[in-house]
Order: sequence, then C-alpha cells, then structure tokens
Amino acid sequence: MELISSVEEMRLLCADFKKKPFNVGLVPTMGALHDGHISLIKKSTEDNEITLVSIFLNPAQFNSATDLKSYPRTIENDSRLCNSLDVDLLFVPSADQIYPPGYSTWIDIEGIAEKLCGLKRPGHFRGVSTVVMKLLTICSPDFAYFGEKDYQQFLIVQRMCFDLMLDTEIILCPIIREKDGLALSSRNVNLSQKDRTLAILIIKAMKEVEKLFYEGERNCIELIEKAKEILSVPDLYIEYIDIVGSVDLESLQKIESTARIMIAVKIGSVRLIDNLSLEL
Amino acid sequence: MELISSVEEMRLLCADFKKKPFNVGLVPTMGALHDGHISLIKKSTEDNEITLVSIFLNPAQFNSATDLKSYPRTIENDSRLCNSLDVDLLFVPSADQIYPPGYSTWIDIEGIAEKLCGLKRPGHFRGVSTVVMKLLTICSPDFAYFGEKDYQQFLIVQRMCFDLMLDTEIILCPIIREKDGLALSSRNVNLSQKDRTLAILIIKAMKEVEKLFYEGERNCIELIEKAKEILSVPDLYIEYIDIVGSVDLESLQKIESTARIMIAVKIGSVRLIDNLSLEL
Repeated sequence: MELISSVEEMRLLCADFKKKPFNVGLVPTMGALHDGHISLIKKSTEDNEITLVSIFLNPAQFNSATDLKSYPRTIENDSRLCNSLDVDLLFVPSADQIYPPGYSTWIDIEGIAEKLCGLKRPGHFRGVSTVVMKLLTICSPDFAYFGEKDYQQFLIVQRMCFDLMLDTEIILCPIIREKDGLALSSRNVNLSQKDRTLAILIIKAMKEVEKLFYEGERNCIELIEKAKEILSVPDLYIEYIDIVGSVDLESLQKIESTARIMIAVKIGSVRLIDNLSLEL
Repeated sequence: MELISSVEEMRLLCADFKKKPFNVGLVPTMGALHDGHISLIKKSTEDNEITLVSIFLNPAQFNSATDLKSYPRTIENDSRLCNSLDVDLLFVPSADQIYPPGYSTWIDIEGIAEKLCGLKRPGHFRGVSTVVMKLLTICSPDFAYFGEKDYQQFLIVQRMCFDLMLDTEIILCPIIREKDGLALSSRNVNLSQKDRTLAILIIKAMKEVEKLFYEGERNCIELIEKAKEILSVPDLYIEYIDIVGSVDLESLQKIESTARIMIAVKIGSVRLIDNLSLEL
C-alpha cells in the first residue's frame, strides 16, 4: 500500500488506472476507522481490482469548531488497518491541498440536503458534497462506497453524481452495529459508559417502531410518538425523529410506500444519528 | 457538421475524441451568434483539431422571465454559420436534457460571483457555473472559449475549473465591437435606433476614463464620476459603474495595479454590460 498526500500525485496515479482495464473503488472516510469502514473497504476490494481509501477530516462539513476538534484521529492505526485490508492507495491530503487559499467553489443540493441533518447543521452537506466532488475528480473511481448510517448523505451524493453526470456509481452498504445494536460511528469513542447506555435507546426506539409498523401501524404521528417516549430520558436531547419517504426524504403522515425512520440525538456533546428502513 | 441534441450521444462522441490525439475546443453559447461568437469559434478552430459549439438558452441564468422570452433565437442561421466555420459538432440540448425532472445540484462561487452582476441578477452566476460545469462534463474539452465582454463570468468559470480541478483550460478572447465601439451582444438587436445612440455612451464613458487614467488620474471616485456624467442621460439607467481589481473584482479607491472599469446599464428593457482594462 502506498500513502499519498499530494493531490497532484494522486490524480496522476488514478489517471493511470483509468488507462487499464481495472475497476477502481473509492472509500471516502474521515479516518478513525471502525468495523463500518472495514465493511466498505472489504466490499470495494471484492468488487474492484484497485481500492482507494481517503482519509480527510473535512473542516468544511463541521459546523462547530468543538466538534471538529473532538473528532477522533487515529491515522497510524488507520494506515495499518488499510494495509492489512489490501488497500492499494491511502490518500491523506491536507486541508490546504483540498481547499487552497482563495478556494471559492461549493456544491449545493436543493431539497434533500435541506431537511433533517441539513436543517440542524447549516453548511454541513455543502461541505460534504463539495469534498466528495473533489475526491471524485481526483480519484475518478468507478464505484464509491458509502454507509447506510449516513443515509441522507448517500442520497445527496447519489443525486450530485446523477445531476452532474459524474462517471462514478455510488454504492450503499448496510449499517454495521455493535452487539447491543448501537450503530458504529467514529464518535462512539467519545461516549462515557453512562452515555453508552443512553445511546442504545436509539435502536430500541427504532425497533419498537419497526415492530408496530409490521403489526400494521401506518400512522406516522403514532409511530414517532412511540419513539419519542422511549427516547425521552434525562441527558438525551432529541434533535429530530421523523419518518420520511426513502427517496425524497419528505416527512410522511401515513406510510404508503417504503419509508425510513430517521433519528438524530445528542448525548452530552456527542451527536449520534441512525435510521431504519420500513419496507411495505 | 453534425447537430446533436441528445446529452448521451454528445457524451459518447466526446469520449471518443478523448481517446484520440486530438485537442478539443468548446465554445459555449446561448445562440443568436454574432461576430463576437465567430471570433471565439475561429480561435477554437485555429487551436484545436475538433471544435464543438453548444447552443443552450439556459433558463437557470435568467432571473427574469421577460428577459428569457425576449432573448433572440436564430437557430437556423446559427447552424448555417457554424457549418460554414468548420465546427465539428453543434450541440443543442433541450432544457429537459440539461435539467431533468428532480434536478437539484447547483454550483456556487463565493466572492467574485457575489459582486457587480451577481448583486444585480440574483442566481444568475449560479445558473452560469452550473450549466458550464455540465457542458464541461458532457464535452470534456481541452479548452473552452469565453468572451471578455462577460469578464466576470470568465473569472467565475476559471475559478470553478481551478477549484474543482477540471481538465479544461478557459481561454479569454477579446471583446468584438461595432465600428462605433458598441460591444457586440445578442441583446443589441433588441435596441431601437434611438436606444442605439444611447448605447454608444458606454464606450464613450469608458474611453474618457481610460484617457484620464493614462493622463495620470488614479483616484477611482474621480474616474467613476466622469463616467457617470457621460452616462447620466434620460432613458439610460445605470445599474453599476465600478473600477475593480482585475483578479478579485474588489472595488478600488485608487488604482495601484491592473484594474478594470465595469459598467452595466439598462436602456428600456435591454440590459447591456461592458468593461475595459486599465493597465499600469
């Protein structure tokens, strides 16, 4: 595995792959790799001759300096891990390489990026789509792998690729969970043991909604109310609980086609998101 | 010359050019071609083996429905002209091909796109950068040719290509003027004979500023005041007159390096822009 920090070098290497009959997969990450990332990397090495992993803690997608500062950084472990997983190139650019002085160009997605996390984290998805666009231009992969935990992010990136006719197919990979159901997230390491017991209420609430849904409940107010009940505990702040259409993320009153329950909470300073598909 | 209206067909044809040792030039236009466009096309056919011209009356960059409606359309003439100029492909997509239902992705440039015409025409440059991005993705030209009359547009497109690391070099071509100095514009056909006599006051004002500048005047308030005097006539509405830095478009108080006088006026319903470099 080669570790590349120069955008120009990465571009040249990736342009060379394009000339060969290789499929190239990219797994864009912010580092602090966990089993969720590992599942994306494994999927890419299964699907493609060449797998690229990028680690870039993208300042543009953090709307809070404290959040950026407390985001875990484990580059040496990450690098060892990628090496052991047969990653071909590990791309670790600096912020100055991605956003040189005078940088001014941003990608905005109307509609789906303006809901849920888009409302709670102004500018977040602008930062996400812009950095993904840049990574896709630099690496020109055939496939890029995203985790279902960030389902809204997946829809936005997919929309961008479709709208701008980029030559990359976006692949959605299932959420990886701890045994107790907590969705893996780099932010989980910032949870205290007490926070951790609160965090598993998220999956508990979603599972309860899923159970009621499969028992026939279609009324979203009822379903959301149930989730709220479970999550209404001290020291857990609900950012949003919503049941939305799986394609447009529009809030639903009644479930009439495939829907998704979307949850964001804050426990102390740690923000957690999760979601579950409700399939008819 | 082939006329192509399908985005998919254009993409495939242009992808084929990429495999050959050809240089490809693109001249993006909104049609109603005049000698200004012709100069861009000639520059491209001189520079490149393949020249593409696109004609797309981009609804996203019009901030007034009346303006869009009154914009001249001369597709048959345009097509004949391109053919006579040895254009290889004339690309004339429909609005639905460029912005299919559900289209949501927009490119925003901070700073330079927020001044001058950006202030007067909200959303205009968002529409411009997005459509240019799409044309560059579809056609992947080595060079794209833009006229200096739309100097702000040139800077914005150049910035976008640099920031998003697109493989196209943006070439700026000089303003073509009528004998009396009026900058060529597709909108000129909408000027009445009386409007036409007002319109030449723009170049008169700029030339007077240039004269004073070469005589040693460096104070922008004085220079702008002089231009305002000349343009302060009935039936001519000044949108802006400014002297700005040539690179960042920041308003200047005093000219200390290469600057540019930028003018936008309205005569009746016709909006005209022009500019002139003031070189130290």
